[in-house]
Amino acid sequence: MAVSPRTPGAGEMFQLLRDGRPRTRAELATLTGQARSTVAGRIDALMATGLIAPAGEATSTGGRPPATFAFNASSQAVLGVDLGATHARLAVTDLASTVLAELDAPLAIADGPGPVLAWVAETGHKLLETAGRSAADLAGVGLGLPGPVEHATGHPNNPPIMPGWDDADVPGILRSHFDAPVLVDNDVNIMALGEHRIAWPDVADLILVKVATGIGAGIIADGALRRGAQGAAGDIGHVAVPGAEEVVCRCGNVGCLEAIASAQALAARLREEGLDVAGPADVVALVRGGDVSAGRAVRQAGREIGSVLAATVSLLNPSVIVLGGILAEAGEHLLAGIREVVYRRSLPLATQHLRIAVARSGAQAGVLGAAAMAADHALSPDAVDALTA
Amino acid sequence: MAVSPRTPGAGEMFQLLRDGRPRTRAELATLTGQARSTVAGRIDALMATGLIAPAGEATSTGGRPPATFAFNASSQAVLGVDLGATHARLAVTDLASTVLAELDAPLAIADGPGPVLAWVAETGHKLLETAGRSAADLAGVGLGLPGPVEHATGHPNNPPIMPGWDDADVPGILRSHFDAPVLVDNDVNIMALGEHRIAWPDVADLILVKVATGIGAGIIADGALRRGAQGAAGDIGHVAVPGAEEVVCRCGNVGCLEAIASAQALAARLREEGLDVAGPADVVALVRGGDVSAGRAVRQAGREIGSVLAATVSLLNPSVIVLGGILAEAGEHLLAGIREVVYRRSLPLATQHLRIAVARSGAQAGVLGAAAMAADHALSPDAVDALTA
Repeated sequence: MAVSPRTPGAGEMFQLLRDGRPRTRAELATLTGQARSTVAGRIDALMATGLIAPAGEATSTGGRPPATFAFNASSQAVLGVDLGATHARLAVTDLASTVLAELDAPLAIADGPGPVLAWVAETGHKLLETAGRSAADLAGVGLGLPGPVEHATGHPNNPPIMPGWDDADVPGILRSHFDAPVLVDNDVNIMALGEHRIAWPDVADLILVKVATGIGAGIIADGALRRGAQGAAGDIGHVAVPGAEEVVCRCGNVGCLEAIASAQALAARLREEGLDVAGPADVVALVRGGDVSAGRAVRQAGREIGSVLAATVSLLNPSVIVLGGILAEAGEHLLAGIREVVYRRSLPLATQHLRIAVARSGAQAGVLGAAAMAADHALSPDAVDALTA
Repeated sequence: MAVSPRTPGAGEMFQLLRDGRPRTRAELATLTGQARSTVAGRIDALMATGLIAPAGEATSTGGRPPATFAFNASSQAVLGVDLGATHARLAVTDLASTVLAELDAPLAIADGPGPVLAWVAETGHKLLETAGRSAADLAGVGLGLPGPVEHATGHPNNPPIMPGWDDADVPGILRSHFDAPVLVDNDVNIMALGEHRIAWPDVADLILVKVATGIGAGIIADGALRRGAQGAAGDIGHVAVPGAEEVVCRCGNVGCLEAIASAQALAARLREEGLDVAGPADVVALVRGGDVSAGRAVRQAGREIGSVLAATVSLLNPSVIVLGGILAEAGEHLLAGIREVVYRRSLPLATQHLRIAVARSGAQAGVLGAAAMAADHALSPDAVDALTA
């Protein structure tokens, strides 16, 4: 009479409370279909973890008013980390994505995993302190890296702009500094998670496209991030662009989208045209200042990106495409180029309700997405069951 | 004290029984965490619908051996319908995809929704009779159409090869013939559902590509079919192929993949070269007979399809790509062309474990996928709750 051991437990009941609304024991018994005594025991177990707390009394319908219980999002904290090629952003949030402390600093990812992760650990601990929390309060760490990450292991896989990081045991290294689960993903996926959570929580099908040093996409389909079999989904930067076979990409292939239309590629092209451009920020500044060549170059990059996004629209039929990364700050030129090609190249059914917009969550998207990834993991039914077992 | 009315009911308990294993009341109480009395009541309600039935006695550990209950897949039937441009396939299956009766017939989709759906209704009723089932046994109808279908309404949307079908109320018309829910999807999605169910049930991320009169894909990600916001996902036939801007597609755009690499396009090209080719079947016959021009043309079509699939692999990181449709029957040439480009154009992380194979479920995939779509709908927790309420 072998029976699977998995019984809907405290973790599943807790999911009902994650919306923050206070509920009575009787309401929870009705919602879960569990006996009052079972519910009472699970409430006690959840109270012991601190994840829920008493939230006053409900209105009585006669007799003693019943006690209510609610998600206690401030009981623990998570650390979100968003590492780019040349900068880092860290945030300590509570379990409901409220930012408690935040920090932005220059950082060279090319220094390699040892120095970079040591810095992350030290800075993370300091930031926890700033937030008034101790290391014991930490429920998880979420980290985004600017390159492909194998999701199952959290190891970078041949990341083109991260020398020394290939197959590094990032979760293992960080676990030696933090006594909490560590989740690692690429920078675009955490940005998609953050933008979706902050700005488009009710949209089921969304593509976030980051145009910066590289180009990549994060895919939300049916409400959840889709990473694919190895966590490599969304890698549109290395899709071939027609007619660009002579351009060699840092990945070793030719004609890749990001070798032609990334902020880095545009900076190089404008430099060749004699403009005073050191990097992506200068491209944005030139466009905003009304420079015609720069504006034209960004619009053309939009068309190239649009040609790949047109295929993406045909394949995934999203209702929203959101543009992020530094080149999205160049204003309407990028959007205009993308829209021009996407609306020309896709079937009516896929574009009639399609919105293409610039990300609303700004520079915080990645770090908040990383923190949310860690919080979601810590608050999953299995994790809460383990805490209350 | 407003409480959401949704309580885990008989429908949710029934999901545990869908694997077909007999279980006792005590096992179900343990698995669901519900009280024995609650479980007993739900078993009675499910028995009354016929969805479960007594399945003998479990081994006793002393005392009277407890009764067991199991999913009774033969209690009802579903009708699956797979309509192509020039043929139809119908199957009556039980609720666990066992085929009870099947029929294959020529049918011109271009005759329009009135005549075609009247024929489907008449033939469907006859096939139910052949299967020894009555109209009252019918739990649902699943229908696949060879064109874009808006999933929420079940209406075709500007289908290029289905004159007269645009915005036709297909579910409404069929509901006047069948007293059961009608679900409509495009032919490639039902084929992906069928192939996934039959041949790759344990693969979470799979793309099915159908290469026939048209070209389309069905996307399984994280174990489920992803249809996108309007149900238009997977429409790779109208992605632009580089260097083919002079080829006009039936969709009105230029350079579309299916205008260049579909079985129809190949047949036309080989005809121009003076070969005696009336349609796709002749292309397959020529390739199988060793005709060099035909083999070369199919391999080149594989490369064109491969260029779009390389982008698909970068975007979705599937672990399996399955090729279906009549051109997949032409043997290794199509596969070879596709593999050549996909493995050249995608990043190592996405291709190191990627398999590209011909569909295993053959011509049955679509009709069984359509039937499975109807059965899944009929057996969903909400549907079963409604039956037992």
